[in-house]
Amino acid sequence: MRLATLHDGSPDGRLALVSPDGVRVIPVPAIAPTLQAALDDWAVIAPRLAERATTLADGQSVENVRFAAPLPRAWQWLDGSAYESHGALMQKAFNLPPIETDLPLMYQGLSHQFLGAGDDVPFPSEADGIDFEGEFGVVTDAVPLGITAADALGHIKLIVQINDWSLRVLAPIEMKTGFGWIQAKPACSVAPFAVTPGELGAAWRDGRVCLDLAVDWNGTRFGNANGAPMAFGFHELIAHAARSRALPAGTIIGSGTVSNPDFRDVGSSCIAERRGIEIVDHGAPRTAFMRFGDRVRMEARTPDGRSPFGAIDQRVVAAYRPSGQ
Amino acid sequence: MRLATLHDGSPDGRLALVSPDGVRVIPVPAIAPTLQAALDDWAVIAPRLAERATTLADGQSVENVRFAAPLPRAWQWLDGSAYESHGALMQKAFNLPPIETDLPLMYQGLSHQFLGAGDDVPFPSEADGIDFEGEFGVVTDAVPLGITAADALGHIKLIVQINDWSLRVLAPIEMKTGFGWIQAKPACSVAPFAVTPGELGAAWRDGRVCLDLAVDWNGTRFGNANGAPMAFGFHELIAHAARSRALPAGTIIGSGTVSNPDFRDVGSSCIAERRGIEIVDHGAPRTAFMRFGDRVRMEARTPDGRSPFGAIDQRVVAAYRPSGQ
Repeated sequence: MRLATLHDGSPDGRLALVSPDGVRVIPVPAIAPTLQAALDDWAVIAPRLAERATTLADGQSVENVRFAAPLPRAWQWLDGSAYESHGALMQKAFNLPPIETDLPLMYQGLSHQFLGAGDDVPFPSEADGIDFEGEFGVVTDAVPLGITAADALGHIKLIVQINDWSLRVLAPIEMKTGFGWIQAKPACSVAPFAVTPGELGAAWRDGRVCLDLAVDWNGTRFGNANGAPMAFGFHELIAHAARSRALPAGTIIGSGTVSNPDFRDVGSSCIAERRGIEIVDHGAPRTAFMRFGDRVRMEARTPDGRSPFGAIDQRVVAAYRPSGQ
Repeated sequence: MRLATLHDGSPDGRLALVSPDGVRVIPVPAIAPTLQAALDDWAVIAPRLAERATTLADGQSVENVRFAAPLPRAWQWLDGSAYESHGALMQKAFNLPPIETDLPLMYQGLSHQFLGAGDDVPFPSEADGIDFEGEFGVVTDAVPLGITAADALGHIKLIVQINDWSLRVLAPIEMKTGFGWIQAKPACSVAPFAVTPGELGAAWRDGRVCLDLAVDWNGTRFGNANGAPMAFGFHELIAHAARSRALPAGTIIGSGTVSNPDFRDVGSSCIAERRGIEIVDHGAPRTAFMRFGDRVRMEARTPDGRSPFGAIDQRVVAAYRPSGQ
């Protein structure tokens, strides 16, 4: 089952089902008005959505629809950094001290807004080091405090594909405080379709999305790393987060930027990683960060060529700022 | 004007007005069902609430009411650490490197739940180092990206008093990662009344709450620090947060644990600070963290003895955990 949210100008949009062939979409207000409402009562709502999906002969073409993020806002967004090849490269390139922990890395990020896959993405300044981060994420129902990783698997109701926008000039300044990121992590973007784990077949295994994530920057292939080699699976990230808090329905947990040990062959899911490689190889970065007007496209594909999440394809633009500020 | 939220079992509770003498409270569903709804349309709703407050002869006794937090959940909770005497002591006591920044310190915390002032507070284990943090906070309406500190003052619609619960054994482990806190920062508690800045009179100045905050632990006075000496005012914290994001209505910004340079005289607003003093003075901490069954009470008072926010007075308890976890 694949779900989407139609942009209608409201903060939460309208929940819609996507046809199995991915070409039609239909709102389902009689079942649930929004994805958050569906997640709040998932045990009741999900079977009704699944039944409706089997008879989905009507609906409108996805070509004529403006998609919001599946959850245009959420009560909680916890982003991990679970790909060790990325972390190890960053340490080496920037001569950082090793992060002293055996636990998953995780920060709490801005969750009051997730941008749609085709929305323009506003930033205050090119000088902040505008970067994309291609990653995968999961959406949970309500998770009790103290859950085990094994039990957490069953709370993963949907899987999503995310662009975790990052401002690289600001990030190290904030990271040094130990307080995590505020200025360096504006709103993320999310691919249009949220899919149930079963939709991914064998590509969903051990709490990991084992799919290649193609990233194109201004039409040129930038990376095609696979989601498999997370040091911790999503179920382990959930158990980490629930150590001292219950998670509300609609919590989104991110993988961190997808990275593979053979990044020189498969490429990267963020510019920072490529710059890290350049620093290691040449002593200095050669690739600049994004400029206003640049586009980034991200799309995961199954081995047989399907696109379960649809594509993120959007442009960065200058943010409107009140005059004189 | 003072506002409160009545606990009714729903996620957002019911908005209520508090009588000027603080003894009666009345729901105002005809004006706004919840505080979030009021903040979403504050320019229209606030005058109607203010008018109703002048004619508040009815209502029920506050003695008979269970208060939720003014915002039982919020889209964004950004907590600062704006008292330099606290930070300097922690560095000295724990031999930490200085935090290299001229900017405000700030992390994004759990905002899907704020506990009521009298609610029991569940934690998984006494061994995690259970600590209170008495602080002040502000609630904004919608704030545009790039706002100046001067303009941010006008977006402070309400002021609140917060207990930012912290797990001190977990906190330094997470802080070292640079990612901020997940496990070490469970849900906060909030005093029952959210007040408009005018309600504080001269005690609201330069974006600071210049009131003593009395903290009692199991009935014994622990601290009575004044909120004035923030290194950055709340308006400056808002401008910092809005550097690369717009803030949604209902954003809560915290001051960090209230601390005064003469902490040996006025006491502290968290156990960690007292332990820091003990480490500096005696080489080791002497005060243990909280035990299940302990109570903490926090109440700010005006010089003429009024209690604008009401009191937090609550007990820590063992969290329910599913069997075997």
